[in-house]
Amino acid sequence: HSIGGTTKIGSMHLLPVSTPYPTKNWLQPRRYKAHIMGTQYVYDFPDLFRHAIESSWTEAIKRNPNLASRRPPQGECIEYSELVLDDHDNLTEVSRDPGNNSCGMVGWLITGRTPEYPDGRRFVVIANDITYNIGSFGPKEDNFFFKCTELARKLGIPRIYLSANSGARLGLATELMPHFEVAWNDPERPETGFRYLYLKDEARARFENEVITEEVVEDGERRHKIVTIVGAEDGLGVECLRGSGLIAGATSRAYNDIFTCTLVTCRSVGIGAYLVRLGQRAVQIEGQPIILTGAPALNNLLGREVYTSNLQLGGTQIMYRNGVSHLTANDDLAGVEKILQWMSFIPERRNAPLPIINSVDSWDREVVYTPAQKQPYDVRWMIGGRQSEDGGFEPGLFDRDSFVETLGGWARTVVVGRARLGGIPMGVIAVETQSVENVTPADPANPDSIEQVTIEAGGVWYPNSAFKTAQAIRDFNHGEQLPLMILANWRGFSGGQRDMYNEVLKYGSFIVDALVDFEQPVFIYIPPFGELRGGSWVVVDPTINPAVMEMYADVDARGGVLEPEGIIGIKYRKDKQLATMARLDAKYAHLKKQMTKEGLSKEEIEDIKKQMTEREQQLLPVYAQISLQYADLHDRAGRMKAKGVIREVLEWRNARRFFYWRVRRRLNEEFILRKMAAAASPTAPKPDNGVETRRRHLKLIEAWSGIANFNTADREVTEWYEHNRKLLSEKVEALKSEAIAAEMRELVQRAA
Amino acid sequence: HSIGGTTKIGSMHLLPVSTPYPTKNWLQPRRYKAHIMGTQYVYDFPDLFRHAIESSWTEAIKRNPNLASRRPPQGECIEYSELVLDDHDNLTEVSRDPGNNSCGMVGWLITGRTPEYPDGRRFVVIANDITYNIGSFGPKEDNFFFKCTELARKLGIPRIYLSANSGARLGLATELMPHFEVAWNDPERPETGFRYLYLKDEARARFENEVITEEVVEDGERRHKIVTIVGAEDGLGVECLRGSGLIAGATSRAYNDIFTCTLVTCRSVGIGAYLVRLGQRAVQIEGQPIILTGAPALNNLLGREVYTSNLQLGGTQIMYRNGVSHLTANDDLAGVEKILQWMSFIPERRNAPLPIINSVDSWDREVVYTPAQKQPYDVRWMIGGRQSEDGGFEPGLFDRDSFVETLGGWARTVVVGRARLGGIPMGVIAVETQSVENVTPADPANPDSIEQVTIEAGGVWYPNSAFKTAQAIRDFNHGEQLPLMILANWRGFSGGQRDMYNEVLKYGSFIVDALVDFEQPVFIYIPPFGELRGGSWVVVDPTINPAVMEMYADVDARGGVLEPEGIIGIKYRKDKQLATMARLDAKYAHLKKQMTKEGLSKEEIEDIKKQMTEREQQLLPVYAQISLQYADLHDRAGRMKAKGVIREVLEWRNARRFFYWRVRRRLNEEFILRKMAAAASPTAPKPDNGVETRRRHLKLIEAWSGIANFNTADREVTEWYEHNRKLLSEKVEALKSEAIAAEMRELVQRAA
Repeated sequence: HSIGGTTKIGSMHLLPVSTPYPTKNWLQPRRYKAHIMGTQYVYDFPDLFRHAIESSWTEAIKRNPNLASRRPPQGECIEYSELVLDDHDNLTEVSRDPGNNSCGMVGWLITGRTPEYPDGRRFVVIANDITYNIGSFGPKEDNFFFKCTELARKLGIPRIYLSANSGARLGLATELMPHFEVAWNDPERPETGFRYLYLKDEARARFENEVITEEVVEDGERRHKIVTIVGAEDGLGVECLRGSGLIAGATSRAYNDIFTCTLVTCRSVGIGAYLVRLGQRAVQIEGQPIILTGAPALNNLLGREVYTSNLQLGGTQIMYRNGVSHLTANDDLAGVEKILQWMSFIPERRNAPLPIINSVDSWDREVVYTPAQKQPYDVRWMIGGRQSEDGGFEPGLFDRDSFVETLGGWARTVVVGRARLGGIPMGVIAVETQSVENVTPADPANPDSIEQVTIEAGGVWYPNSAFKTAQAIRDFNHGEQLPLMILANWRGFSGGQRDMYNEVLKYGSFIVDALVDFEQPVFIYIPPFGELRGGSWVVVDPTINPAVMEMYADVDARGGVLEPEGIIGIKYRKDKQLATMARLDAKYAHLKKQMTKEGLSKEEIEDIKKQMTEREQQLLPVYAQISLQYADLHDRAGRMKAKGVIREVLEWRNARRFFYWRVRRRLNEEFILRKMAAAASPTAPKPDNGVETRRRHLKLIEAWSGIANFNTADREVTEWYEHNRKLLSEKVEALKSEAIAAEMRELVQRAA
Repeated sequence: HSIGGTTKIGSMHLLPVSTPYPTKNWLQPRRYKAHIMGTQYVYDFPDLFRHAIESSWTEAIKRNPNLASRRPPQGECIEYSELVLDDHDNLTEVSRDPGNNSCGMVGWLITGRTPEYPDGRRFVVIANDITYNIGSFGPKEDNFFFKCTELARKLGIPRIYLSANSGARLGLATELMPHFEVAWNDPERPETGFRYLYLKDEARARFENEVITEEVVEDGERRHKIVTIVGAEDGLGVECLRGSGLIAGATSRAYNDIFTCTLVTCRSVGIGAYLVRLGQRAVQIEGQPIILTGAPALNNLLGREVYTSNLQLGGTQIMYRNGVSHLTANDDLAGVEKILQWMSFIPERRNAPLPIINSVDSWDREVVYTPAQKQPYDVRWMIGGRQSEDGGFEPGLFDRDSFVETLGGWARTVVVGRARLGGIPMGVIAVETQSVENVTPADPANPDSIEQVTIEAGGVWYPNSAFKTAQAIRDFNHGEQLPLMILANWRGFSGGQRDMYNEVLKYGSFIVDALVDFEQPVFIYIPPFGELRGGSWVVVDPTINPAVMEMYADVDARGGVLEPEGIIGIKYRKDKQLATMARLDAKYAHLKKQMTKEGLSKEEIEDIKKQMTEREQQLLPVYAQISLQYADLHDRAGRMKAKGVIREVLEWRNARRFFYWRVRRRLNEEFILRKMAAAASPTAPKPDNGVETRRRHLKLIEAWSGIANFNTADREVTEWYEHNRKLLSEKVEALKSEAIAAEMRELVQRAA
């Protein structure tokens, strides 16, 4: 305990009492070193977070002036302490001067007072110090990174990694260099080569622990032939790879568990690049590459000067366009701002409630922007509204200006991001209706290759856009725990040879796999003039994960196995169209009847036939239209509802009101259902919350609430949930007592 | 209960007593129908399984004559009953005549007496009946498929799907076709078009349930404008898609849970294609395509005759080469044989012990085939041995003739499959050391595209081979529960622009993700003259999943961050090489010393410089070799062991003996550790078995056994495990009682 009665550890902690007062900023050289590499000195990043949170307040207050009263005083929006390993290799929080790090990895536990969490939300930041051993990963760095990641997982809070490194550390045992001897083929003519390296007795004794030798006697001399050089320094080779494996595994686990995000603030090499990807979410600063092997090394390998820069290999024009980087930013401050904006959508810690803000965009309004039938439009207008031609604003389904698109450079036929619905954060997946160009760059290493431009049609899933869809679903589910809205408007999967070869089936299956794992409410909504056909319906059908998925269709939406053109080609062909014509067209029917008369002459038959053919030619186009219309009438939302494949038919205009209460109800419900599941199996680390358990618990809640139309009265049920928290927690307690009693009975039986 | 005192249901069950004796095989027409589509009639498949098991016995006895005594009598190697839904929509087993199916999906519960399980192993077979509604998926078929899948999951046994279908069922409500009316723009001139379709009062009354209408009055006539056609038949559209979603989700779950495998015995379309992929393991019969959209429909869409056959889209030349199909076969019998061979490696049901056979290839022999350094060889020789030039056989690491390669057409720089080690089944991943050609076919839909041939170097991970590696790891882990051997010989990941753009980081991360989830023992072994560098070490390092992974290196293996050429370019450049020369070469040292003398004339300096340069030029090649050797000495197995990054240094010759006892020990150990974990948390559905718990339990076992060198005495420990089953289960019981007592105390506390 310190003298002042506070438990905070001061900046002079662990420093000798004789530490001089710094008269000049001794960090300036390091800062300079970092700047010329294009990044900030690592200890300057907390201040960037401060700036970013300040500006998020300014932004938030501009939108909603009521927030001003909650804004923390200037400069006090963050508090942080540095994470340091103590003597027992445990992390402790200390507050010490910048630049006292003893390895190339630095970490903080930051509490930020953001507009969503004015009382503060915590997150762990881990950062490479690029000025320390050029930011390479040695065993100490790896261990520290691992510990910080485990801390974030233990606390269930976000883990931000600031990546600026040179990959795994490598080196040679320099201490042996001045001491080894060479066994020459011919000592007089060393140019003829050598056989092995060895140490003499004295050197061998001195470096006993650094080298493994075999004794040989040659020319009467006792030599210690070097078999293996271990070296005194820890961090020359494989031990760094082992450490890299440790943090690779930890990051893979962390992604499943907490919010992980990487800011590529400087080059990220080798394990650095893998950490970016294993943490999945990434914001890449322009001009900073993500690479596995540097351009010079590749040129050496290829034997010619193919690459002139690392940016050719892993700059944003590669990594943003293939979906490794979710976002790009022009500088570190913008990058940090984007990460904080991202975090504004997600709960402060695992399983905490979502950060629902008081939206100035009321839930109780119509959705004004409506796509026109068979006209190209930007699907982002449906999500966020658009500026109308008269200068007004036509709002969309979600809160104005709340949509943040990610992965925007990759597979652009699908649009994914996060938005708010009446202040409730949601993941959004929507479908581009226009064709987009997909440019595959030429391969510099292959002189014959050329840039390839492929046109990808709107409303069709390709291998890349199916992968992107699955990636977005996984991102929303893991660590972000967001409910999901899919504005489903797909005609199917692209099934041509190129896409079949390019494994469209695998990526389509990823979508099913991702939805199977989803744990928050999912709403599939076929939007007005949207359609969902065949395979693309199959991979988002709510039966894939009935506990959380619900499907809706707009009154003006279509759904079916094939499009009407396809189905009439099989089930309402020309012969059947002619039969309909014979039934409905008096003239044609009359001609047909004449044909059946007996005793017609050959000329008469010819004549009737000719008239019939004429009539057919005249009317068939219309009857083809009629058959199309007939087929199309099978694809309506009314049929979907009648067949029980959707929950409700919705009108776009009122969809915001509907979904606002629906999602709010479902979030409350999930929360209480999870509590009930945990209460029902009090000792299980992962209580069962499957469809059956949920149904039973929902029945219970329905009985407690006594609300008529419990299934559909979303607003009433929501309000009941929110006003009866106490009652509900009492009920849950009662459930728990019952369950404990039951479990004890079972244990007694087992023990018997 | 039947009269005969047996519980088996006979072939006349549920048939009327007046059922005539069949005088002629009435199934012949259906059989014919199936044959012309290139497959068997669905009810003939059980017999194929019988034949396949018979021939697996013949094969097994040929290898090991001792097995003959266990062979079941001719024709009695399988027993099966058909699965049928009863009135309560529950599956029951019946034995009825073929062809009595009332929907297009048929299922059996088969017990096969295989050489591995002479007393019988059970599995579920689900099959499309292609002669019933061209094998389309309607709600009944989907429900039946779902129920069979859930049954297999409940029993934890393999689920084989025989795929022969036409995708989701589609149709139009034919009953309305003769009754609807058309509201013409001008009834006199129908060619000018129509406005809507409607029904008259009478038709409306008749089809009340089949159609949704709106009443309009026009020209004094009351009309019922058709808004939606529902139709009387169930299975016209969206309801089939819902059913498809149901079985898609179920299949995705089943893959995680049990052994799923599909035989593509006839075309597999739409949902049929997705079921193939969602079940992951697939054996495709030559000439039978896996497609999403048929060639004619695609030609319609493209507006020209691009594709002439469905095989162009999804034949084996596409699907085997992109890894959707793991294996191909020439006919159905061969396909069924391959599936049974696959199943011979895996346990009879989830969490059961592996089927270990008495191998005729003794564990106690040397591994004879050894790769030569820096010479190309076929890595399959290391796995399974090879015929030597003198006609003898040089055995490899695994049992002779036991290796079965899968995914052989895809990403051929990695070799994956299953093999036995002294009879113990294992998954195997090895690395091709030769370059392979990867041919990307030209896209018929794009006249400008040409076939592309890329050369993929051996020992390097590309996007496709990284994906394949991860796929194999997932396959071994899910449903197969095999221990895994990785003969790790990778120089790194391909980091050129093409591969970076092609998302090599994502697929490399898949490997880490797959290993994180692995639940059986994994052995990483760097083979003789093999190397493991940088990124490729990182993604297989045992710290990724320390509970199950172990790493070994051959005495002749290398490991490090970079290859010696790379590292001396950074850490032992020319200046340092010259310093070494000055130390070791008397002549050069002498010259150098002369240079430092004072009072040298310009000419003398010039002369010494010239002599030095000459000497440098003469010796530098050798000193470069010395520096390479110096760097290489850091990459030896000895250093890996000294740094604790591998468990042991192995000799290839003795690797079989070592791994045989090691894997046998580890399998026994896993079994007992799982029991202990379950005993330690008796009420948890998924007991904790993490690194800490395991360490504690291992300490306990060590104490019980009293074996010195418990960690390394693999044979002794194995034998102790196998001879002390009873003791161990008593100890586990005791643990359980303790845990129950502890849990009761905790419950009492919670209840208080």
